[in-house]
Amino acid sequence: MSNSPSNPKGTRDFLPSELSKRNHIIDILRKNFKNFGFLEIETPALEKNSTLLGKYGNEGDRLVFKILNSGEKVKKADVDSLKSNNLNSFTKSISEKGLRYDLTVPLARFVAQHQNDLIFPFKRFQIQTVWRADRPQHGRFQEFTQCDADVVGNNSIVQEIELIKLYDKVFSDLGFDDLVFKINHRLILRGIAEHIGLGINLNEFISIIDKLDKIGLESVIKEINDTFSNVSISKLESLLKDKSLSFNKISSILNDSPLAQKGLNDLNSIFDFISNSSIKNEIRFDLTLARGLNYYTGTIIEVSSKSNSKLGSLGGGGRYDDLTSLFNMKNTSGVGISFGLDRISILMEERNLFPDYLKNSFDVIIINFGIKYLKEIYTLIDSIRNQNKKVLIYPDKVKLNKQFSYANKHNASYAIVFGENEHNNKEIIVKNMIEGTQSSHDFSEIDSIIF
Amino acid sequence: MSNSPSNPKGTRDFLPSELSKRNHIIDILRKNFKNFGFLEIETPALEKNSTLLGKYGNEGDRLVFKILNSGEKVKKADVDSLKSNNLNSFTKSISEKGLRYDLTVPLARFVAQHQNDLIFPFKRFQIQTVWRADRPQHGRFQEFTQCDADVVGNNSIVQEIELIKLYDKVFSDLGFDDLVFKINHRLILRGIAEHIGLGINLNEFISIIDKLDKIGLESVIKEINDTFSNVSISKLESLLKDKSLSFNKISSILNDSPLAQKGLNDLNSIFDFISNSSIKNEIRFDLTLARGLNYYTGTIIEVSSKSNSKLGSLGGGGRYDDLTSLFNMKNTSGVGISFGLDRISILMEERNLFPDYLKNSFDVIIINFGIKYLKEIYTLIDSIRNQNKKVLIYPDKVKLNKQFSYANKHNASYAIVFGENEHNNKEIIVKNMIEGTQSSHDFSEIDSIIF
Repeated sequence: MSNSPSNPKGTRDFLPSELSKRNHIIDILRKNFKNFGFLEIETPALEKNSTLLGKYGNEGDRLVFKILNSGEKVKKADVDSLKSNNLNSFTKSISEKGLRYDLTVPLARFVAQHQNDLIFPFKRFQIQTVWRADRPQHGRFQEFTQCDADVVGNNSIVQEIELIKLYDKVFSDLGFDDLVFKINHRLILRGIAEHIGLGINLNEFISIIDKLDKIGLESVIKEINDTFSNVSISKLESLLKDKSLSFNKISSILNDSPLAQKGLNDLNSIFDFISNSSIKNEIRFDLTLARGLNYYTGTIIEVSSKSNSKLGSLGGGGRYDDLTSLFNMKNTSGVGISFGLDRISILMEERNLFPDYLKNSFDVIIINFGIKYLKEIYTLIDSIRNQNKKVLIYPDKVKLNKQFSYANKHNASYAIVFGENEHNNKEIIVKNMIEGTQSSHDFSEIDSIIF
Repeated sequence: MSNSPSNPKGTRDFLPSELSKRNHIIDILRKNFKNFGFLEIETPALEKNSTLLGKYGNEGDRLVFKILNSGEKVKKADVDSLKSNNLNSFTKSISEKGLRYDLTVPLARFVAQHQNDLIFPFKRFQIQTVWRADRPQHGRFQEFTQCDADVVGNNSIVQEIELIKLYDKVFSDLGFDDLVFKINHRLILRGIAEHIGLGINLNEFISIIDKLDKIGLESVIKEINDTFSNVSISKLESLLKDKSLSFNKISSILNDSPLAQKGLNDLNSIFDFISNSSIKNEIRFDLTLARGLNYYTGTIIEVSSKSNSKLGSLGGGGRYDDLTSLFNMKNTSGVGISFGLDRISILMEERNLFPDYLKNSFDVIIINFGIKYLKEIYTLIDSIRNQNKKVLIYPDKVKLNKQFSYANKHNASYAIVFGENEHNNKEIIVKNMIEGTQSSHDFSEIDSIIF
């Protein structure tokens, strides 16, 4: 028995006031995912290690939480591996399952497994917890929620367009109208690599470009110069130095690269459809957007706040051409976006975007004058609840000021008063706790009091 | 890489059609929990082993999924314990955390930890996954959802009354009107033990009584006779043999037991408030209800189906007087109920209680005649989504019968047709997919088409 109970480091308890805010965001996400034609699925928290490992790189494998095999099975622990410091082998001998690390690999597994039961293109969304054995620190958790929408099995640019519209709809519903949706294309980055004379090592090139926002143009140029030989730095500089380079200008510079032209064409179709006048936030082509070293092969997108750039991205996504091939299902193009729940929540808090009604724990509180009076007005209580209002019966017959103070602490809007006096007068008193007014209703009206 | 990817045994993937049914139940639960004044919380899936272990008995401890310590920490594996077959010690040396086994112990930990931030009585609900390393079998899962509502810090009988009303409201909203809410009181069971001359060993007595439904009265009497000496079997028989024994009759038989009288008084207050005319389902006193060997100390309740008794209980709960004392917080009475999501779902499926609209993946499908036509009617698409309708754009410009067949597979209610002809005629065609009719709208009406 611990003297001061606590949740593990890197995890969180959500008290009602915090959870109602998170759920406000999730409700808006879920509503819009559905209205954009996405269907919800859930996968288990537990996945086989054979599903999880080898998908996220060595560092990722290390960060997957492994479940200890149950009961007698731990006897198979490979002590020799432990002694020879082969921790992977040792772990393998005592663990067969792990906790979901993201929602993307489970999606690929799900689609490959259930391909005969799904109708393609398959538009799915998923809002579930993921776990990472990262060192806990401020704002980084071992257990957090991911909110993803993906389309699997279709390569129409309509999907990219709809996903950008979805971003705009969700964020404007949440109260944001000054975010920027940066957009780029992996083929353009590959085109640049081609253009500047860089052959292979595309991933290394992308990972350096990805740091541009953090370390600046000069350091990026230096690092590329140090890393690669025979690269035309001047060509790279002329592409990256001027953020306001027009789309057409870039297109003409990269006209020697068929890959880049394909990427530019895709973006052109998007910009032709979505202009900044047709969305509430801003869409912006950003040649330097790289989105890390992941599985993206086409369009990439990232959402950020103009006012709080330190916060990092509020969401991101892109097209990947062959995710399900991890599970032997070939030629299945996908595209998806995700929403960063925690960061969205932080920014909404900063800007006071959570609606006030979230603070109301209850709409109506029933003042308790004893069980016999409660029984007399229980049809009213039923009726208010049937009006979809939150009703709390104060649990004990105690002093009125204590009951009203409880009502105030919970921001109740109304209090119902029905005690001996009211019983004798055949009336029910409704106090408006916000305006400080009250109204009296004849007891015979009990079924028709509307809140 | 596995050739045939699969989720672990004992876990489930939820496809959209299944998940929409589960979420239908959860939505009704959540709405009613709120309308009855419960506030939602969430606790992490990961808890410290010191929180989890020692709370569920030896068998429970074994069934807690343990998380392997990360990285270098596994080097501390206590190989000597393993060799001497002391698996608990070995496990302890490589695991500090586990997965939540139920929502009750985390609630107790949460309340003790955050007691200064909560307003008591604290009415909370929680709908989250729990994990148990049970042997997977038909209908028993290692990962499942619990739905609990509890009131902590109040011993008023109003809570029991409200919880029964809550059960009735949720189940009638789901479509059930023939369930039975069996109710009993632990003090009555203790009173019976007193009455028949059984001193201690109350738990053993309760665990035998608990089997009555399964093994029948004769076997129960035999087992009690075999287990205890100096027990008045005839007294026990006279109480248990006649299920229709009236409340008053039982009260008078047990008038030698003050404990039983206290329990009977509580039930009396409940029955005085809730009659079978004031609820849709049935409430029934059941002297043989025992609710297993758990922490209950007062009222106990269980929900079951009259028509499908094999299914087991659809929910249950009761009052516990000192749960938080596990975490050094004394004198905090609680009472709670839980809903068995999986069994409720099975019974609803059996009775065809899921509403038909759950089958509609989309309300409206947009037939794709090419991106230029989609662009022309995108304000209509926005408008339909703002009417909170689910809209899917068919992703590719393919043959119409393929697009309509996709719409039918997803039970779409309407299809929007806008191609070259319609563009030329300045009209938008809305097909009603259910009635097989269609209407034409002037293009200028685009913002005022209502679905």
